[in-house]
Amino acid sequence: MIRFVTAGESHGQALIAWISGVPAGVPIDFEFVQRELHRRQLGYGRGGRQKIEKDRVEFLAGVRHGQTIGAPIALRIENRDWANWDKALSVEKLPDSESADRRLTAARPGHADLAGSMKFNFHDARYILERASARETAARVAAGTIDKLLLRQFECEVMSHVIAVGKARLPRAAAWKEIQAVCENLDSPLRCVDAETEAQMKNEVDVVHRAGNTVGGIFEVVAHNVVTGLGSHAQWDEKLDGRLAQAVMSIQAVKGVEIGAGIAAATSYGSEVMDEIGYDTAAKKFTRPSNRAGGLEGGITNGQDVIVRGYLKPISTLRTPLGTVDMVTKQPISAAYERSDVCVVPAGGVAGEAMVSLVLAQAMVEKFGGDSLGEMRRNFDGYLRQLKEF
Amino acid sequence: MIRFVTAGESHGQALIAWISGVPAGVPIDFEFVQRELHRRQLGYGRGGRQKIEKDRVEFLAGVRHGQTIGAPIALRIENRDWANWDKALSVEKLPDSESADRRLTAARPGHADLAGSMKFNFHDARYILERASARETAARVAAGTIDKLLLRQFECEVMSHVIAVGKARLPRAAAWKEIQAVCENLDSPLRCVDAETEAQMKNEVDVVHRAGNTVGGIFEVVAHNVVTGLGSHAQWDEKLDGRLAQAVMSIQAVKGVEIGAGIAAATSYGSEVMDEIGYDTAAKKFTRPSNRAGGLEGGITNGQDVIVRGYLKPISTLRTPLGTVDMVTKQPISAAYERSDVCVVPAGGVAGEAMVSLVLAQAMVEKFGGDSLGEMRRNFDGYLRQLKEF
Amino acid sequence: MIRFVTAGESHGQALIAWISGVPAGVPIDFEFVQRELHRRQLGYGRGGRQKIEKDRVEFLAGVRHGQTIGAPIALRIENRDWANWDKALSVEKLPDSESADRRLTAARPGHADLAGSMKFNFHDARYILERASARETAARVAAGTIDKLLLRQFECEVMSHVIAVGKARLPRAAAWKEIQAVCENLDSPLRCVDAETEAQMKNEVDVVHRAGNTVGGIFEVVAHNVVTGLGSHAQWDEKLDGRLAQAVMSIQAVKGVEIGAGIAAATSYGSEVMDEIGYDTAAKKFTRPSNRAGGLEGGITNGQDVIVRGYLKPISTLRTPLGTVDMVTKQPISAAYERSDVCVVPAGGVAGEAMVSLVLAQAMVEKFGGDSLGEMRRNFDGYLRQLKEF
Amino acid sequence: MIRFVTAGESHGQALIAWISGVPAGVPIDFEFVQRELHRRQLGYGRGGRQKIEKDRVEFLAGVRHGQTIGAPIALRIENRDWANWDKALSVEKLPDSESADRRLTAARPGHADLAGSMKFNFHDARYILERASARETAARVAAGTIDKLLLRQFECEVMSHVIAVGKARLPRAAAWKEIQAVCENLDSPLRCVDAETEAQMKNEVDVVHRAGNTVGGIFEVVAHNVVTGLGSHAQWDEKLDGRLAQAVMSIQAVKGVEIGAGIAAATSYGSEVMDEIGYDTAAKKFTRPSNRAGGLEGGITNGQDVIVRGYLKPISTLRTPLGTVDMVTKQPISAAYERSDVCVVPAGGVAGEAMVSLVLAQAMVEKFGGDSLGEMRRNFDGYLRQLKEF
Repeated sequence: MIRFVTAGESHGQALIAWISGVPAGVPIDFEFVQRELHRRQLGYGRGGRQKIEKDRVEFLAGVRHGQTIGAPIALRIENRDWANWDKALSVEKLPDSESADRRLTAARPGHADLAGSMKFNFHDARYILERASARETAARVAAGTIDKLLLRQFECEVMSHVIAVGKARLPRAAAWKEIQAVCENLDSPLRCVDAETEAQMKNEVDVVHRAGNTVGGIFEVVAHNVVTGLGSHAQWDEKLDGRLAQAVMSIQAVKGVEIGAGIAAATSYGSEVMDEIGYDTAAKKFTRPSNRAGGLEGGITNGQDVIVRGYLKPISTLRTPLGTVDMVTKQPISAAYERSDVCVVPAGGVAGEAMVSLVLAQAMVEKFGGDSLGEMRRNFDGYLRQLKEF
Repeated sequence: MIRFVTAGESHGQALIAWISGVPAGVPIDFEFVQRELHRRQLGYGRGGRQKIEKDRVEFLAGVRHGQTIGAPIALRIENRDWANWDKALSVEKLPDSESADRRLTAARPGHADLAGSMKFNFHDARYILERASARETAARVAAGTIDKLLLRQFECEVMSHVIAVGKARLPRAAAWKEIQAVCENLDSPLRCVDAETEAQMKNEVDVVHRAGNTVGGIFEVVAHNVVTGLGSHAQWDEKLDGRLAQAVMSIQAVKGVEIGAGIAAATSYGSEVMDEIGYDTAAKKFTRPSNRAGGLEGGITNGQDVIVRGYLKPISTLRTPLGTVDMVTKQPISAAYERSDVCVVPAGGVAGEAMVSLVLAQAMVEKFGGDSLGEMRRNFDGYLRQLKEF
Repeated sequence: MIRFVTAGESHGQALIAWISGVPAGVPIDFEFVQRELHRRQLGYGRGGRQKIEKDRVEFLAGVRHGQTIGAPIALRIENRDWANWDKALSVEKLPDSESADRRLTAARPGHADLAGSMKFNFHDARYILERASARETAARVAAGTIDKLLLRQFECEVMSHVIAVGKARLPRAAAWKEIQAVCENLDSPLRCVDAETEAQMKNEVDVVHRAGNTVGGIFEVVAHNVVTGLGSHAQWDEKLDGRLAQAVMSIQAVKGVEIGAGIAAATSYGSEVMDEIGYDTAAKKFTRPSNRAGGLEGGITNGQDVIVRGYLKPISTLRTPLGTVDMVTKQPISAAYERSDVCVVPAGGVAGEAMVSLVLAQAMVEKFGGDSLGEMRRNFDGYLRQLKEF
Repeated sequence: MIRFVTAGESHGQALIAWISGVPAGVPIDFEFVQRELHRRQLGYGRGGRQKIEKDRVEFLAGVRHGQTIGAPIALRIENRDWANWDKALSVEKLPDSESADRRLTAARPGHADLAGSMKFNFHDARYILERASARETAARVAAGTIDKLLLRQFECEVMSHVIAVGKARLPRAAAWKEIQAVCENLDSPLRCVDAETEAQMKNEVDVVHRAGNTVGGIFEVVAHNVVTGLGSHAQWDEKLDGRLAQAVMSIQAVKGVEIGAGIAAATSYGSEVMDEIGYDTAAKKFTRPSNRAGGLEGGITNGQDVIVRGYLKPISTLRTPLGTVDMVTKQPISAAYERSDVCVVPAGGVAGEAMVSLVLAQAMVEKFGGDSLGEMRRNFDGYLRQLKEF
């Protein structure tokens, strides 16, 4: 069973990602790992921090001589800005005079600040926001690279593209090859497969940037070449659609999740949304003329691309500050502004890829077992033969 | 820790719900339990089965003398149609001549039939569909009543209403009192708070019914009077929004989940979607003029109503059958039609209430602990005082 | 992943066992299931109840036409004595005059009575003892038969024998064939492989029976033909020895668990307790001249028999009652005596078999995956070839 | 819910401990943390490594300004010997000429070497033993200090002492004050409360040391001042005795676990092993004249000291090597000898304290909930009042 957790504060010493249950013998492509971290930092509309800090992953455990060894994997992403925060986030107790200058008592709407401070009984939202920050997705992306490298061994790829930024929305479906191309292009400003739409998206970003505002959007994660039969209909918590929904909704700022054409399906008729079933005798496989189900029926993958969309609200930190209340004095005050992004949809997509990869890799290990890559591959191949002869 | 699972096939002897971790001493209102089961069977556009079978919950374990005793609770909902299925679903092996007449080899698009049959290596989708069927939600609703009765002890109520059926959509927000009223009215055809919209919704149902078609829709589950501080920002799998998303997405036919105004937020600007923070000195509590966040910030409840929307695709079984392939012969064939519903949005909402209640009750027990209701209440009251004095 | 839980009170309507994650297509031998239930009720020194109630398992879900279908399995064991308890354990509230006659306020030492009543805040230990009772092991044994039937498909058998009753102790190791023979002999009084020792054991039972006393003992569960490589050294909660220890220690009245010769090893020297490694070139397998490790090294099965011993304290309910205190009046009183057993070591062993089978079946499904028996078998066979070629 | 995992290889860069779910506001006593790490390295009969490496814990996340903040805690223990292993355990692929000199193909009996290599399909046991090594307990002890510091807030202390080394065994019970004293004395050679027995124990160590042998032993972990009502009788996996058994059995080299006088109880009569119940009217609490149950009845703490014993086999690495087989050539060979200890019973006890503290802290958080220390304390105090008024 693959398990995955993280630790670390946004401005702390480091982020830690811990992932276990990956079979032994999976080769680790370190350049790929760094490239994925880099992809998370890209995108038109990002704030200054992404340029300051070029994240790098350090492997502390579980990978030796270029491959996994069956032991839990621990990854560290150092925070290069830590020197500026070692008082504000000192591990040891310090006099107030040294530690207090980053306290935050003006809880920012849309963040965990107020709810978290009340829950944990702090009058300093710093203790909450440091962990709630989307910086944590760097650790998710790092761990997700391990999942991706595992999936690749089974010819499965997980990529994402941006289908909406504010009012600008991709008016058509994207082909897998287009998604691949735009993912490989690190210069793509917003990872949109359509140049014209992307120009509109950039315009949305420019408008909000000038206005001191922020903008939301929609990313689409596509897992290509997913084998039929992952997940299960048998219990509510085994359904793969539910597990994907949790994984993607847990990403900072995501407030909606959709499988396939799920949102549109709700305002449609049955005859419009089904993917009829055919059979290709030559290839010995079942076929579909469409994929509105997003590759999942009854909580089980059906062999089509798995498509999961995340709906990101606009970043809650605005340069034009929102009204709030000081948690100590209870007096009205303007919400604090820290250097921030105005649009993070492409980065959200990279985090989405990591979470979808995690869930798919978990489901692969559940179905195919195997403690070594060779064993897992052998089991997988046997199943592929079974499907052909079904 | 509250845990919850079910067992049972759609036409088997019975459905079983198992729920554990509920504190001892929670009074069980048996009429309420039956009424909730009944609510699941209501709604304009339901098929014949809902009238045949009036579901009843039998308590087998964990409730004695009208209250929980700290032991796991087992509930049974007998299937009144079992006598007609005791051969087709016989526990023991029977000759084909007796057991084969309900076999289903024409996998129905949109169901688990094909993916499930391939996964579990059956050439009879009966073995899959019996468990994948939305009849299983009866067990969810039964267990959900226990969660609801626990939440009620803390003045928290969970209800749902229908905000869209096909193209007919509620054009305004619904007040809590409206939702309460429409939930209490068992004669409400589609549990919509607005009479005019409901008339349009009924029309949608009539149209698809005549056309041998089906229609999807959107339900909204609202949890009222939820305490601040449930869930946590600290880890991806502790975020309450993610857990709610999994719970609701796991409901049969749900393909999209939204927290608050999440879908609309993705095409909005930051200044439009934030819920600014005020403070009511008299009541000693923080206030908000709006609730676009759906009661969750950073994966933590913020004291506002928790709002979760489920997007239901249209029922996949159409009277005008879809094209498919026989799993044995691989030849084209029409998908089978079993008596079915044309619109299940209100029922989906009742299942949604059960799943949201489960997640909230879990989070309550996590936060307040307590093995008896008195202990949990004492802890809860202490926390309410803490919040007042925050 | 195989999951397993139970519900039900000792004198309630029924016990329920729920088990999920078993691959589809496992044939269920119903006679075997009933025979196992029967084995739990055997043994020299059992009380009257075992004769009153011949337990029978009813399959409610997950098994159709004689085999598993991938859905969760629900089993019910009806309590034939329920008619005598339907007031004392009524689901609905009753007037005290009808429901109070089985209340128990004199907490019995050695039982959950006092700790449970204080925890759940009841002044009636009935609510606790009904669930804490070892009768619950009937549900464990029922579910365990499913695990055993799965393991049998991989030539693995799990049996138990009694190695001590009070001071009478088997002075030698038992061969697998002896254990098999004594398990198959339903007339064996105490399931001891040595006639002379068994006579001494019977004498221990006779002595305590006459004295109004009870006696403890040791059972040994042996899993034969376990494949190398179950469990993992990688994390504390993945070690199979720890998981076995939890499973066996959780059995009512077990207060000690030992893997192989673990207790004796603690007072030994390193040179005495290791199982040296050889290699059989013809059979292409590693060999060992001894099995003091009980088949587990580093939390991983090593291909030898897995041996787990459970140390059972004497039954806490004595005919010669123990001193206690009334929970209401706080006055000294004698502990209540309900019809009971004086020696349950063989039954403890049957429960031990069920729990060891559960853990091994879980570990098999983790390692070999597979949604159908055929798939799991194919994966298993591939691994066996890998081991031969290692 | 408190969760706990580790990562790291014995000679890798570092060990990592990750622990989450600890309430916010728990003060961290850093000297105590280091002192505990130091205690693990003490003991008569330890090898050279304990002197080379003075372990130090570095806090990477979750602790700020001297207290927990509700975020997951990540701890790092650097391996000071890493410079000597950076080729043998290089993260990146190296030419064989650089990386091969520490390969181990002669699988050592009693270790995970052979079973692990076969499971994960390596012909180099180095990849297995690095993770299976008892060095991992340093990470457990580090995380355990957090649990201990939490328990201390509730006046609960967890300590251990040694009751047997080989044939030398403490002939009497130890009083809590004695255990405290011997734990506080860092110069105690074997942490035995009885000077005469300790002298015998040292003699056992001397004898095996001279003989190139090793010796096992028994440690006893005692949790003092544990509140009544932790754990539950309600489900097999909620029973605290089972959870403690898993936690302690998962420690490297532990092959037996006992609660209270569990091993002796199995050869006793009922009248000998029960702890009768009295009531102290002045103190308003139930009393017991004895504690053979080790503080647990029905899987629930009963207010007495929780006593768990771990039975450690002798260290499997002997200077006089054992016979084995080379995994590549399949030829007989002597098992490798790496610098090692001859007796680790006191260290085993420190690891045992950590694991018992983990389980108790988990159970405390389950029962009392609470996101901040103040909230948890308030809930705890309310429960104490309830118990007094029971």
